[in-house]
Amino acid sequence: PTKFDQLFKKVDELKPDFIDVVAQAVAIPAVSSDESLRPQVVKKAHFIVGQLESLGFTDIQLKPLGIQPPPVTNPNLELPPVVLSRYGSDPNKKTVLVYGHYDVQPAFKEDGWDTEPFTLVVDEEKGQLKGRGATDDTGPLTGWLHVVRAHREAGIEFPVNLITCFEGMEESGSLGLEELIAKEANDYFKDVDAVCISDNYWLGTRKPVLTYGLRGCNYYQTIVEGPKADLHSGVFGGIVAEPMIDLAKIMSTLVDSDGKIQIKGIDEMVAPVTPEEHKLYEEIDFSVDELNKASGSNTALYTKKEDILMHRWRYPSLSLHGIEGAFSAQGAKTVIPAKVMGKFSIRTVPDMDSEKLTKLVTEHCDKEFAKLNSPNRCKTELIHDGAYWVSDPHNAQFSAASKATELVYGVKPDLTREGGSIPITVTFQDQLKTSVLLLPMGRGDDGAHSINEKLDISNFINGIKLMGAYLHYYAESKEN
Amino acid sequence: PTKFDQLFKKVDELKPDFIDVVAQAVAIPAVSSDESLRPQVVKKAHFIVGQLESLGFTDIQLKPLGIQPPPVTNPNLELPPVVLSRYGSDPNKKTVLVYGHYDVQPAFKEDGWDTEPFTLVVDEEKGQLKGRGATDDTGPLTGWLHVVRAHREAGIEFPVNLITCFEGMEESGSLGLEELIAKEANDYFKDVDAVCISDNYWLGTRKPVLTYGLRGCNYYQTIVEGPKADLHSGVFGGIVAEPMIDLAKIMSTLVDSDGKIQIKGIDEMVAPVTPEEHKLYEEIDFSVDELNKASGSNTALYTKKEDILMHRWRYPSLSLHGIEGAFSAQGAKTVIPAKVMGKFSIRTVPDMDSEKLTKLVTEHCDKEFAKLNSPNRCKTELIHDGAYWVSDPHNAQFSAASKATELVYGVKPDLTREGGSIPITVTFQDQLKTSVLLLPMGRGDDGAHSINEKLDISNFINGIKLMGAYLHYYAESKEN
Ligand SMILES: [Zn+2]
Ligand SMILES: [Zn+2]
Ligand SMILES: [Zn+2]
Ligand SMILES: [Zn+2]
Repeated sequence: PTKFDQLFKKVDELKPDFIDVVAQAVAIPAVSSDESLRPQVVKKAHFIVGQLESLGFTDIQLKPLGIQPPPVTNPNLELPPVVLSRYGSDPNKKTVLVYGHYDVQPAFKEDGWDTEPFTLVVDEEKGQLKGRGATDDTGPLTGWLHVVRAHREAGIEFPVNLITCFEGMEESGSLGLEELIAKEANDYFKDVDAVCISDNYWLGTRKPVLTYGLRGCNYYQTIVEGPKADLHSGVFGGIVAEPMIDLAKIMSTLVDSDGKIQIKGIDEMVAPVTPEEHKLYEEIDFSVDELNKASGSNTALYTKKEDILMHRWRYPSLSLHGIEGAFSAQGAKTVIPAKVMGKFSIRTVPDMDSEKLTKLVTEHCDKEFAKLNSPNRCKTELIHDGAYWVSDPHNAQFSAASKATELVYGVKPDLTREGGSIPITVTFQDQLKTSVLLLPMGRGDDGAHSINEKLDISNFINGIKLMGAYLHYYAESKEN
Repeated sequence: PTKFDQLFKKVDELKPDFIDVVAQAVAIPAVSSDESLRPQVVKKAHFIVGQLESLGFTDIQLKPLGIQPPPVTNPNLELPPVVLSRYGSDPNKKTVLVYGHYDVQPAFKEDGWDTEPFTLVVDEEKGQLKGRGATDDTGPLTGWLHVVRAHREAGIEFPVNLITCFEGMEESGSLGLEELIAKEANDYFKDVDAVCISDNYWLGTRKPVLTYGLRGCNYYQTIVEGPKADLHSGVFGGIVAEPMIDLAKIMSTLVDSDGKIQIKGIDEMVAPVTPEEHKLYEEIDFSVDELNKASGSNTALYTKKEDILMHRWRYPSLSLHGIEGAFSAQGAKTVIPAKVMGKFSIRTVPDMDSEKLTKLVTEHCDKEFAKLNSPNRCKTELIHDGAYWVSDPHNAQFSAASKATELVYGVKPDLTREGGSIPITVTFQDQLKTSVLLLPMGRGDDGAHSINEKLDISNFINGIKLMGAYLHYYAESKEN
């Protein structure tokens, strides 16, 4: 039997034990957005440390990230620690950093869960693990530990030096992580050759994928203000210039109902689609029905698979999120808001330049406001930007992961991107100057942030095998 | 000396006593919007009852209005009672119902008050009474009691039968009052010949006014919905039709930044300005500076006095209030809202028909939505409507009040309207089939709902004299 036969057999044997570890981890309600549950988040960090210790990981450190910045109820609230550890430190081996997060989204049975969210249910009939964190990201995070255990118990040499970077604040903006990565880049992380993140999903439910791109996000607000304070529409309606009217006019010029951005100069910044790239979309297993199922509606703007995928992944989009300062409650309030802030964001893609984009956006809004001849004041500003990320999907890491997918699943993976951003991806790439691979374990219908979150047991077990095979193939590859 | 000389002398003499009554009333924090202060609102009702008893009012009734409907914290919260009472019941005299409210707006010293809001401060230097309720509406309400006392102590026969209708829920929507008026129309209120409301203000600070018109208000929401639940703009931005985009487009078509309503057919419903009416505006003491001072900005849409007054009082206006269901907090949230409700209202004037207006509005929104070719669903609905009100400013009541103003102030009052609505005005007129007069006591700069609310002592004393003289002249008039 090959080393893979031995390894995979051991993974299958240990399945009950692996599931038991996930069950123990899921039982800790590590909701990072709930201040009152912060001790549980910390408890889960310690649970992971216990696992790492029993597996022979070394140099285990719980890195403190300091006090959580406002808004918080408790001004002395400590951020959850980042769990750093090593498995092996052989200078002749490559070093792979694996990232995961042990915190989870909130969950209450009353939200509509069929079972207690913090009790892992093993549904043998459906072949699923159900519970908060099963797929996001407790299951995948423990996967790396299971890979180590399987190697140890099968007596197979571990192919790389492994470094773990497990955070407990991902669902709440990864506060403090960027600074930690920058600080450890030439310290704890100094020998890292590659980074692997298992915290996203297959595009659909049938075909494994490797993810090589993420859109960025530039978030803006257009502020229109006039009167000194909110006014009563009975007294002032019809005789003062209303900021909300100006803002509605401006917001209506940003994008059309068919999704076409109306700000001039943006299209010109977008990298053209090459025939080679187009071929990637043609090969992917997806349909408009899957999109409509996911949105729970028939509101898709495109019917062709390639159009949907390209507009999700490689074209910019502009969304209107809402308005701060205006009336937003139930019922009827006859207020003329004095100062309103329209929020919108643009998902960015290669080769859009963030600064140039901001210039185009503000110039557009200024021009549209000028047309209104309004005595109000108007200003548009960037609230934050996160860069897009695209990797070479044929580099050493991706090749190793592709080969591993074929070995485990018997098919070549689809090469996908994501429409959203995982800002930490770019941080790892830029700070550690390494390639980053997104290697999802779960499926597109896992319901990561919804009720009845699940992870198919086959994805869990095959995912562990995939992680192992990827590490071996990457270790064997000539390039980094 | 005439009866007016005697009466006015007595009012002057009793000034310290009258101010003392206002001080005792203001000291009770009767904030109707604050559930925890409901006992104080009730206490203030009982304080008024004590005053009425000592002045010889009869048939004093504290009318219960039942339990306050949701939303409330306490599901058994009683509405404050309406204080009904009579002074005189001579079948040979006319009967005048006077309306006032004893509840007040919230007030905290921390809001920026110079003094404790619930301690009446007599500022002799400025000649002002300062405290929450001084001008809205505790001062004017007690005015009716002071008129009675002055007559009693001067030994002058009271010219009419007086009925009081004092409510404690005006600042919170007058809950229950409409039903009470309907119920008592042929009972407690069956002999009422005229209604007088002293709960508004002079237009400016120098010239007394009588108010003969109010705009109505039709409040609408346009609901656009598509996806089953809120979506993440990273995953769905650019590939689904966003309700917010459709709504922004629709809201932008309702009214222009110069205040011009863009819904076809509304202008045609507005009664034309007659030369006689135009003359009323020309004569009124007002300027654009007063508007800019009131809005704390230079956002006036008109510079000519007549234009401002007509657009505040006798032309419709359309205000955009906000959006329910969209992101409305501080910061940046990358949500695609699944269902958004745009709120806007139209101030109505003669001869606009509410039903026809609603038809025009919904047809306009439906047509604009159809242009978008959006797969979302859109519906526009009326949330509530309150009728406009216009009286003949030369009828018996107004003539009597005008004569009284000339007697007390030495000038003819300006005839004004208000841009807002006081729905109870129309209720009184319709239910009691009588003329209604709005007879303000305070000035335009009293700060009714703001910090440092005040009532000029001269307005208070002259206001009491005005109330008395108006009752006499009205009693003497031939018509009702
Ligand atoms: Zn995650
Ligand atoms: Zn997540
Ligand atoms: Zn009032
Ligand atoms: Zn008020």
